[in-house]
This record gives sequence, C-alpha cells and structure tokens, in this order.
Amino acid sequence: MTGTTTAARSAHPARAFIDTNLRGAGQVMFMNNPITGALILLAVVWGAIAARMPQVAIGAVVGLIAGTLTAMALRVDTASLRQGLYGFSPLLTGAAVPTFLDNTPLMWTYLIIGAATTTVVTLALTTVFNTWRVPALTFPFVLTSWFLMLAAYQFRKVSISSLAQPMLPKPVSGDRLDMSAADLATSMLKGVAQVFLIDNWVSGLIILVALAVNSRWAAALAAVGTIVATLLAAGLGADATSVTAGLYGFSAVLTAVALGCVFYHPTWPVLLYALLGTVFTVFVQAALNTALAPIGIPSFTAPFVFATWLFLLPKRDLTPIPHHRHIDDGVIAGTHPKA
Amino acid sequence: MTGTTTAARSAHPARAFIDTNLRGAGQVMFMNNPITGALILLAVVWGAIAARMPQVAIGAVVGLIAGTLTAMALRVDTASLRQGLYGFSPLLTGAAVPTFLDNTPLMWTYLIIGAATTTVVTLALTTVFNTWRVPALTFPFVLTSWFLMLAAYQFRKVSISSLAQPMLPKPVSGDRLDMSAADLATSMLKGVAQVFLIDNWVSGLIILVALAVNSRWAAALAAVGTIVATLLAAGLGADATSVTAGLYGFSAVLTAVALGCVFYHPTWPVLLYALLGTVFTVFVQAALNTALAPIGIPSFTAPFVFATWLFLLPKRDLTPIPHHRHIDDGVIAGTHPKA
Amino acid sequence: MTGTTTAARSAHPARAFIDTNLRGAGQVMFMNNPITGALILLAVVWGAIAARMPQVAIGAVVGLIAGTLTAMALRVDTASLRQGLYGFSPLLTGAAVPTFLDNTPLMWTYLIIGAATTTVVTLALTTVFNTWRVPALTFPFVLTSWFLMLAAYQFRKVSISSLAQPMLPKPVSGDRLDMSAADLATSMLKGVAQVFLIDNWVSGLIILVALAVNSRWAAALAAVGTIVATLLAAGLGADATSVTAGLYGFSAVLTAVALGCVFYHPTWPVLLYALLGTVFTVFVQAALNTALAPIGIPSFTAPFVFATWLFLLPKRDLTPIPHHRHIDDGVIAGTHPKA
Repeated sequence: MTGTTTAARSAHPARAFIDTNLRGAGQVMFMNNPITGALILLAVVWGAIAARMPQVAIGAVVGLIAGTLTAMALRVDTASLRQGLYGFSPLLTGAAVPTFLDNTPLMWTYLIIGAATTTVVTLALTTVFNTWRVPALTFPFVLTSWFLMLAAYQFRKVSISSLAQPMLPKPVSGDRLDMSAADLATSMLKGVAQVFLIDNWVSGLIILVALAVNSRWAAALAAVGTIVATLLAAGLGADATSVTAGLYGFSAVLTAVALGCVFYHPTWPVLLYALLGTVFTVFVQAALNTALAPIGIPSFTAPFVFATWLFLLPKRDLTPIPHHRHIDDGVIAGTHPKA
Repeated sequence: MTGTTTAARSAHPARAFIDTNLRGAGQVMFMNNPITGALILLAVVWGAIAARMPQVAIGAVVGLIAGTLTAMALRVDTASLRQGLYGFSPLLTGAAVPTFLDNTPLMWTYLIIGAATTTVVTLALTTVFNTWRVPALTFPFVLTSWFLMLAAYQFRKVSISSLAQPMLPKPVSGDRLDMSAADLATSMLKGVAQVFLIDNWVSGLIILVALAVNSRWAAALAAVGTIVATLLAAGLGADATSVTAGLYGFSAVLTAVALGCVFYHPTWPVLLYALLGTVFTVFVQAALNTALAPIGIPSFTAPFVFATWLFLLPKRDLTPIPHHRHIDDGVIAGTHPKA
Repeated sequence: MTGTTTAARSAHPARAFIDTNLRGAGQVMFMNNPITGALILLAVVWGAIAARMPQVAIGAVVGLIAGTLTAMALRVDTASLRQGLYGFSPLLTGAAVPTFLDNTPLMWTYLIIGAATTTVVTLALTTVFNTWRVPALTFPFVLTSWFLMLAAYQFRKVSISSLAQPMLPKPVSGDRLDMSAADLATSMLKGVAQVFLIDNWVSGLIILVALAVNSRWAAALAAVGTIVATLLAAGLGADATSVTAGLYGFSAVLTAVALGCVFYHPTWPVLLYALLGTVFTVFVQAALNTALAPIGIPSFTAPFVFATWLFLLPKRDLTPIPHHRHIDDGVIAGTHPKA
C-alpha cells in the first residue's frame, strides 16, 4: 500500500506538489497530514473572508507555494520537503504581510521575496539548532517577518495598514475584564485561530477538528493550552482587548502541543512540564508585548518559540521521542528538516 | 574522611539539602563552600532588613529552595546539584522579584514560578554553552527575570514598585561627582553587595569576608573589581546616583573574580587580561543602561555575563584551568553543571 | 620566489608588520592583498581629509595597529594573523569612534581600549561561529562599537558628536526622491566608501580600483551591489538623505562580494542567490534603522553580517569553495581565523 502510494506520487508530480503544500499547512501545528492541512487552509479562508481580508488567505497560500518552490530550487532533502517542513514558515510570512501592510502590487512582490527568504532562513536556522538537536520551529517566519515589518517603516511605498504605533511601554491600567462564559469560550477559540493571524472563533473550531483528524492528543492539548493561557492572562489582569482577541492564546497553544505530545510522549510528568512551559509562554508573550512596544512590531509566535526552546533544550529524561517516530493516534512527524 | 562525609550526607538528607542550598548561595560568587554561602545569606538578610525590605531576603531563600527542588524533580546530575550549581540563579531571581514588584500574595506565586523556570533555563543554556565549554554563568537568572519584569508591565495584578520608567536615552548631564574618600569606599563596598541587589556597604564587607573564607584571591579580586569599576565610572563622568549606589561595581566584581581566579589561574598575563575584561564590563554596563532605558528594566548581571563570555571564549593559552579542578587556597569548583 | 618572500618577511619583522596591517585593511573587503589594503587606506585618508575629519583616518590606522598588536600579545595563530584577519574589525572600530564621538584625548584612550577589545571579541565570535563553519565577518566590530556608542550616552566626559538622537520610529514620509543620473552614480560610489564610514564618491572609486587590483569579480560585484541597493531603496521610497549618502549601499556591497565570489564560486545559480541576499540586505538595513532608532546608534555593517550569515548557513550545493583556497584572478583568502 505504501509502495503503491509512493509510486503514485512519483507518477504525478502535480499531485505530489499539492500534497507537499497541504502537509506544509498542517506542519504549522506539527501535523504531517494533508487532510489536516486542507482543513487548516479552510479555516484561514473562512476567517479571512469573514474579516473582509481575503488577501490574508491568498497571501498564506502564495507564501506556502513560494517557500516550497524556493526549497525545491535549493535542492533540499526530499523527505523533509515532502513532509511539508519547508512550507509552514513561509505560509505564516505570507499571512503576516497582508495582515499588516496595505494591499498593493508592491506588497505582493514584498511578500514573495519574504517567503523565498523565509525558506533560506529555515535552512540557516536548522543548521544552527541542529547543534543541540532542537528544531527551528516557526522562528524563520518570526525573524524574517520582523525584518519585513520593521523595514516597512522606512519605505514610503510599502505602507503600513495596522501595525501598532511605536510607543514607550506603560503599566497596563483600565477596567477589570468582565467576560461571560460564552465570551471566554469565544476568546479561547480565537486563540487557536490566531496561530494563523485569524481573529475568528469558527476558524479556531475548524482548526481543532483539523488537529483531531490527525491526533486527538494534539487537539486536546491545543484546547488546554488556550484555556490555560486565556484564564491566566485574564486572572493576572492583562489588557482586555488582547485577551478577548485570543492574543494570549496562540503561542500557548503551540507550546502545549509541542511539549505535551510532539517532542515528548504525553505522560503525567510530561504534561506537568508542558503546563509550566505553557504558563511561562504567557509570561514571555506579555514580556515581548512590552519589549517590542517601542519599535511597533508584533511578537508573532516568538513567545512559543522561545519558551519551547528553553523547555526542549534541557533534554530531561521525560521519555522524549525521536522526532521521526510516529506517536499517538496520528502521524506526527518531527518538524526539523534533516540537515 | 571524604568517605565518612559522603556517608554522613547520604544518611542525613535534610542536612545534605541545607548544605546544597548554602553552596548554591556561595556559587553566585563561584564559591563551592557552605560557610561562604551562609555568610552571604547573612549579608543579604542584613541588607534587606536595613532597607526595611525583608521580603528581598525571604525571596532569595525561597527562590534558592524552589530552584533546587525543581532541579531535583528534573533529576539533574547529583554532583552538580550538590555543588549548588542549580541554586545560584534561582536565588537571584528570588531576590529580584520582590525588589522591583509589590509585596502581594500573587507576587510570591510569580516568584516561585519564576524560580522554577530559572532552573529549566539553567539546564537549557548549559546545553547551549557547553558547545563552547563556557558556563551559562548567571544568564538564566538574567533572562528569566527580564521576562518576569517586562511581563509585569502587562499584568494589572502584578504591580511594579520600583522599575525605572521607560524613556528614551539622553546623554548624561548634571553636576560633577564630588565624593570624599569615605564616600568612595562606601560606594565600592555597596558595589560588592549589589551582586545580590543589596544597597548596603556592611553587606558588601560581609561578602568580602565570605569570599576570603574560601579564597583570598577571590576576595582580593572582588575588591579590585569594585575599586576599578567605581573609579573608572566616576572618572568618565557617569551618573552620580548610580556610582554611589554601587551600580557600576557589581558586574565588574563578578568579571574580575571569574576571569582572574576562577576560570584562569591568577598569573600576571591573566590579571592584565582580567583587568581589560573588568574595564570592558563597565562599558557594557553603561551600554545596557542606555539600551534598556526604553523598556524600563535593569541590566541585572548581564554586563558581567556578556563581558565574561567574550573574554572566556577566545580560550587563549593564559594557563586556563579545567573547571572541575580546585585552585588557590580554596575549593572553587566549576560553575557549569554537567550536561 | 615565494620562499624568498617568506624569508624576506621573517628577516624584516617591521616590513612583515606593515604587510600584515595592509592586508588587514584589505580584509575589510575580503582581499588578502597589501596593495589593495594600501589603496583602501588612501581612500579613507582622502575621504577623511575632504570631510575635515582627519581623526577618522588616524583612528582607522590606530585601531588597525592596536588590534593587530593585541592579537600578537594573545599569541593567535600566525597564518591568520599574517593574512590580516585580526586587523579588519579593529580598523573599523577605530574609524567609527572618532566619526561619532568628540575628538578629545579621552576619546583616543576609549578608541584604543575599544580596538583591543575588538580583537578579543573576534577570537570569541570565531570560536562560536566555527561551530557552523561560517566566519564572524565584521560582527566583532559591530558588537564592540555598539557597546562603545551606547556607553558614551552614560559618560559625561566621552561626548557624542554626531549620533542620531534616540526617538520612536515613524513611517518615512516626505518628498519623492528626484535624482539625476549623475546624482545616482555619486550616491552609488559613496555606498562603496561608506563601508569605511566615508561619505565621499572619489573614495568609493579608489576602493573599486583597490578591489580590481586583487579580483575583478570582487570589483564587479561591489559595483552591482551598490547599484542594486541604491536603486531598490530609492524605488521603495526610502529616506532621500540616507540614499544619497550611500547608507543603503555599503552593507549590500559587502553581501554581494561575500556571497557572489568569496564564499561561493561565481556561477549563475550563485549570482542569483547573491542577488536575493543583496536585496534582503537592503530590507535588513531598513529594519535595523527602525529597530535602533529608540537607542540612537547606527547599524554599522550589521545588515551585511546578518544577511550573509543567513545565506551562508544553509550550505547549499552552490559549488561552495573552501575558505583557504584561491579563486578567480586574485588571492581571496578565507576570512575566518583558524581556531
């Protein structure tokens, strides 16, 4: 059966290319599964259209394809490519650029150069982090998109639509957050969707289903991640607008899934460790909100990346699993390309 | 005799735990010696009470214990644990949190999560820096505490008591510093105490004694470090308030001891090299004061860490000594946990 | 012949010392050639005198010599030393300090300590980056000079002459850039000279000649680099003052040469890859202009360093050449000192 599939893939390069890209979409959430990827793209399209920002969905797809094509041009190893490991960061760059910059022809050129560069940066950071056998995660997207956003301030023809105005940080003040249970649930689902810069709870729900298709553990941990992060941020008195938009949730979702079932087996000690990592992700999220305020760029998924690196590097004996092995009820493959 | 001691330790886990934690206090200054550690804790208690901030001393002890317990839960290697190498960074996190945040029950939860995370970060950074066989030094404390301080700006219920207000840097102006010899000596002693965020010259004196108990070289180099740094900062026209509070001294103290007698043998070339490193630490201190001004956080011991890394990494033939060997008149052990 | 030369060098330490330093000047542009170095120094002298800032040229030479002497004192490997690999970063530190700080006796002390430290930092960063077999490039200069500039804000007696005032970034606005072909050509030549912080088109021309003496590929790529960067920055609507002063050109020049003919052989795929790297360098330049605005320091050659690292680390099969091999019509040696 596997043999047949492989043969079929070889025989149909177009089908293989589509499969590769769908897996790329799934790999944003560590899922090496084209159906998960397709559902995730559906969630992005839904959210983008609902927000009257179709360019965000188009950008995500264009970024994904540009990144994958760049990887092919650079002759990366085929196994990693086919698992979608060169698609997920460019997809996010492609979603970020039209979210924050005006929809002009020049923006699309900027996006494509950015997505191609994201693939180069993926290869570069993979070389660096392989030294300690941890993956580069979504940091190629974060780093490249930080450069692209910061640079936009200096180019009159690349105009900014919605970056926060640079300002000195102030301690948060203002009203207590007063949310109903329904509001809370909506915020938590938005937290899942915000992984893809989508502010829509239906999209969040679709993404949870997409995860469950491949791994029930991943879906459960994503849900726990956004619940913990949203309650914690609300409980500590974080800015109400950010909490309700799910902006404290998305990095925590990724940390919970990564630490809880992707890079370790989900045992009780691991789950406790992943919980500490998820709590710390919320602190890092808040910290980056402060640190980046003077330069007017969002933290993207950096809180997830920093917290997950710090919790993966200790390599404690919490029954880690090799990245290339399958776990659970799904086929969660490793997320770091082979060198 | 060693055998008996080891047996005694095994027989009395409570005593071993206390010994471990006292060594942890000593290791902030690279001293693997429980008496040094006890005297250092005395200095911290003295300074905290004198400043009517007992929570700083309590926080230091709580952080030390929480960090050590976390290390035990993560089953780190026993030899490093028993040398106190998992205690010193959480101790500093525990002193920093109540120094800058209001004394509320929530602050204590924040502190304990912070101290536990500091241990995880110690393991992570040790993995990274072992690549070049240099220790992580106090950077786990610095990094974790930066996150905690920056995050506090975003949480209404974690209120800030004394962080500097974020502002754009300006060239220092104002009056010439006019200090008597006695003022200078006081400032220099405060420089030693500020390693532990303590603004008290008596505490500085106690810490010098604590060092001398274990290593006369360490005590002498600490004294030279604070003298050089204070005179240099005053001579270059640094802000008078910072100089008199010893804020230019503490990182220089650590660099002088680290380069002068901990990681190298104190020969003349080494002492000259350590002097250049100490001078550079003062520049890095001033640089970070500027760079961190817009985000309102202190540099902590980062100037020591950055300067010492840069001066250790060249691994010149200045008679370096292996970290696990004893030197001098004391038992200065290496400060980087075994991977 | 080579044997005779070597013998001659051994016999005349003063001549060898001068040769070493001239190669150091050449290595800023990756040229292991004393004539190239001499012409570059001529260009710096010309530009400094034209700007009535002779201290910049004197500083460059003093920094070069101080850095080389420090390397000799630290007994670095002779082969790397003789290729000038310990001279180029201190030379740049020596040019930067009098460009931005007032010309006082204290400034010269500051410069010499800075240049000596740059050599220590060169050794440190070489140790780190050897892990991935990429060179430290000019980052020792960048890092040390960032510290020196930031520190100057805190020292009343080290007064700043021309650093940009710290401010929050704003999107660039203002008039369209309206340049004649002659203006454009002048700006592009200034872009080459700005590698050495020189704002003079004649100096740029001399440097192109200096490159051609050693490698026609390097000269051609430097020209292409500044043309692409200047046109791109102007086309995207960057600040007119920066574009005309060549400030978008200098890092791109270095990236184009480094990726196009120093670390890879100049084949078509390599040239395309180098072009993407050069474009990305312009984005990083703009990004750092934004990110560094609140702390009032220039980006120096950091855009070149970051972009070149990211494009070297992937180590794609684009016919890379070993750093110690000669290429092309010249003798372009590797730029990373042997560990």
